[in-house]
Amino acid sequence: MSILFTNVTAVTMSPDQPVLSGVFVAVEGIKIASVGPEHPAGEFERVIDCTGKVMMPGLVNAHTHVPMALMRGYGGGCDLHTWLNDYIFPAEAKLDDRCVAAGAALGLAEMIASGTTCIADMYMNTGTIAKTVLEAGISANLACGAVYFGDPADFSPEKCGDCKNHVRLYEDWHNAGEGQLRVDASIHAEYTSCPPVWEWVAGFAREHGLRMHVHVSETASEHEKCLEKYGVTPAQILDRYGVWQNGGIAAHCVYLSGGDAELFAERGVTAVHNPVSNLKLMSGVAPLFFLRDCGMQTALGTDGVASNNSHDMFEEMKTAALVQNYSFGEDHGQLSAADILAMATVNGARALGRDTGVIAAGKIADMILLDFTAPNLFPCHDIMENLVYSANGSNVCMNMARGKIIYENGTFLTLDLEKIRAEVAGYALPRIFGGK
Amino acid sequence: MSILFTNVTAVTMSPDQPVLSGVFVAVEGIKIASVGPEHPAGEFERVIDCTGKVMMPGLVNAHTHVPMALMRGYGGGCDLHTWLNDYIFPAEAKLDDRCVAAGAALGLAEMIASGTTCIADMYMNTGTIAKTVLEAGISANLACGAVYFGDPADFSPEKCGDCKNHVRLYEDWHNAGEGQLRVDASIHAEYTSCPPVWEWVAGFAREHGLRMHVHVSETASEHEKCLEKYGVTPAQILDRYGVWQNGGIAAHCVYLSGGDAELFAERGVTAVHNPVSNLKLMSGVAPLFFLRDCGMQTALGTDGVASNNSHDMFEEMKTAALVQNYSFGEDHGQLSAADILAMATVNGARALGRDTGVIAAGKIADMILLDFTAPNLFPCHDIMENLVYSANGSNVCMNMARGKIIYENGTFLTLDLEKIRAEVAGYALPRIFGGK
Repeated sequence: MSILFTNVTAVTMSPDQPVLSGVFVAVEGIKIASVGPEHPAGEFERVIDCTGKVMMPGLVNAHTHVPMALMRGYGGGCDLHTWLNDYIFPAEAKLDDRCVAAGAALGLAEMIASGTTCIADMYMNTGTIAKTVLEAGISANLACGAVYFGDPADFSPEKCGDCKNHVRLYEDWHNAGEGQLRVDASIHAEYTSCPPVWEWVAGFAREHGLRMHVHVSETASEHEKCLEKYGVTPAQILDRYGVWQNGGIAAHCVYLSGGDAELFAERGVTAVHNPVSNLKLMSGVAPLFFLRDCGMQTALGTDGVASNNSHDMFEEMKTAALVQNYSFGEDHGQLSAADILAMATVNGARALGRDTGVIAAGKIADMILLDFTAPNLFPCHDIMENLVYSANGSNVCMNMARGKIIYENGTFLTLDLEKIRAEVAGYALPRIFGGK
Repeated sequence: MSILFTNVTAVTMSPDQPVLSGVFVAVEGIKIASVGPEHPAGEFERVIDCTGKVMMPGLVNAHTHVPMALMRGYGGGCDLHTWLNDYIFPAEAKLDDRCVAAGAALGLAEMIASGTTCIADMYMNTGTIAKTVLEAGISANLACGAVYFGDPADFSPEKCGDCKNHVRLYEDWHNAGEGQLRVDASIHAEYTSCPPVWEWVAGFAREHGLRMHVHVSETASEHEKCLEKYGVTPAQILDRYGVWQNGGIAAHCVYLSGGDAELFAERGVTAVHNPVSNLKLMSGVAPLFFLRDCGMQTALGTDGVASNNSHDMFEEMKTAALVQNYSFGEDHGQLSAADILAMATVNGARALGRDTGVIAAGKIADMILLDFTAPNLFPCHDIMENLVYSANGSNVCMNMARGKIIYENGTFLTLDLEKIRAEVAGYALPRIFGGK
């Protein structure tokens, strides 16, 4: 498929030309073929006039648990411990593949409608998520965060469910869809596993050249208990076992200390900030200025929708900007709208090891259009300010993932929303929540 | 006009029956005629099936400067002082009636599309705003916040522009549209005026039985400078001149101290919380739990869009909930979704002295419908959680203000958005910003 976008105003996220206007953007197959002021030669199967619209790279949601869309708002108002133990874990215990497929499709629909083209997801029944993502059309790094509560002395990879899940996920889905899917090695968190698991997962990552995806220092108590138990932080104890050798994602990073950020900077690990979830569960605010000053890359994620309760990355960007600048901006100067947009696009792409998140020739054609004639986006004194502080996901009028338009003017082109709703209401919710 | 809503699921904000489902809601003229499980007798000009939708009271934006929609995102990234002096004040100096009308219409369009049915606005050229609001169809308490930088000894109401504005606004517009408009007496703030002004405005309010609308203790420096200058807080110095005698709105209240909250509680003054603006300008977070414990009523506003940069009250609710619960929730227990919804509806109505904000027979028919089949609002484990944490303004599919449907499925029925955009782009922006 070849598509030509004309009269394009684009926030490119390319440092040399952050905003272009009146340009042509041509897409051939899954890549951007050209971006520039001249009408490119050749025939195009479709020409899209972008007058009144703004193009930007598709959003990268760098830490999600997409099937948790089924639990949107479930157990709201509880503290983290009660919420997990009394609501989320019992619900998750009832999940089967069919539930996970329905929940993943629902979460992906919400993400696609609000402009996301690429995610890093960590959950269970990951093979089912892989199939659903392939159909939906966006790119995903998938991870089945290893959990192990057994006696470390009894650990054996042959008997560990999540080790077997790693092998299966990698063999079945790594690089599926010509790279649309990738598999990340993954440990759920320091506090839900133990050294033999870390050693095995690190070895698996080394063997196959995989990046890593781990929850790190989300809460103060998690961070402090690790210090008590091992004498070092979660980042550092995992490093001893080689977990960070290929870089990857450290989700949350609210409570790094004692050289953690410098270590992550050296290892090429990105801190994925989840401000809404961290506020909702009263975990804290990750110190982005400090992480950045230590040389760390920072990206953005929604976390699972059960603790958010939305997949809207525009909302996540605004919350990140407001809370960070309020909490730390006086001492550091404000994070700019461009900084925040970078977190949600090009930095996220880098965290996932993907050549996207920028509107430039040769990049994967992941891009969205927003309707800037909407009353909440007009007038426009500064495009980036409007994107970060005024837009919401509903302003997205087109989502192109890997060169294919998958959503346009309210219509899903790869997913059947009515069918998804019927499956969630008719199968998943009764199974999990007993007839709700 | 008589309209019957059938198959209604309603968040009523009535404490005895907060959520109803399967009910009929009948509207006659500007009021709700009945709410209940029985089909009401009589003929209806229109019947609206609400299957898949949720009804709630229209949102009350209790502190706005609506024409500032023209300055959306203008001067973003500056501190308050630079932002006001280098960007906002010079722009405002160029406003004329025609600019204000265009900006007000634009801001109202954004508000209406995102579910607001009632506002408390403080701005200049207020007569022009009055005309625009009357056409748009929502209810408004309008105020022309008195500013006076002259020598207090020289003050005379005959020579004070904002005193004359008070008189004109009251005479021309108070109770216009059978109460659709009301006029509030108003002092911009303690630091932008002086005792003779406060005395005059308080007298004017007493004479005409008007409520008051004032910016109070928005920043620490404002609060502290007042303590230095007068030995008491802004709330208290204004009280000495009788400013709070009829209750009303104290916008912001980030830094109350020394009995301010108790004083406001006694005077029937509502604290209007503007969390997004307060974070964006790095002013602080109003301590809602503390205000509530002192007996104060709290409501919610967006403030002007130039420091937000959105009029979406759903976003404001979520930010309020997240930031309040994170900042103070551990010691006080969380504000519930119901508490937040009350701030944005019934509490706001009370702050404005209006009999709305509740879905119940006899109330003004200000109500909205949200599409709960949207992928971001499904599934629904708890309607109030979904409204506060998952919804955004774009989920609003109908806005009824004073018994009249003014917005439905993306179409404005009282405003011409294309004409408004043309007027903003063709007249207002060139006049204010010189050709932008």
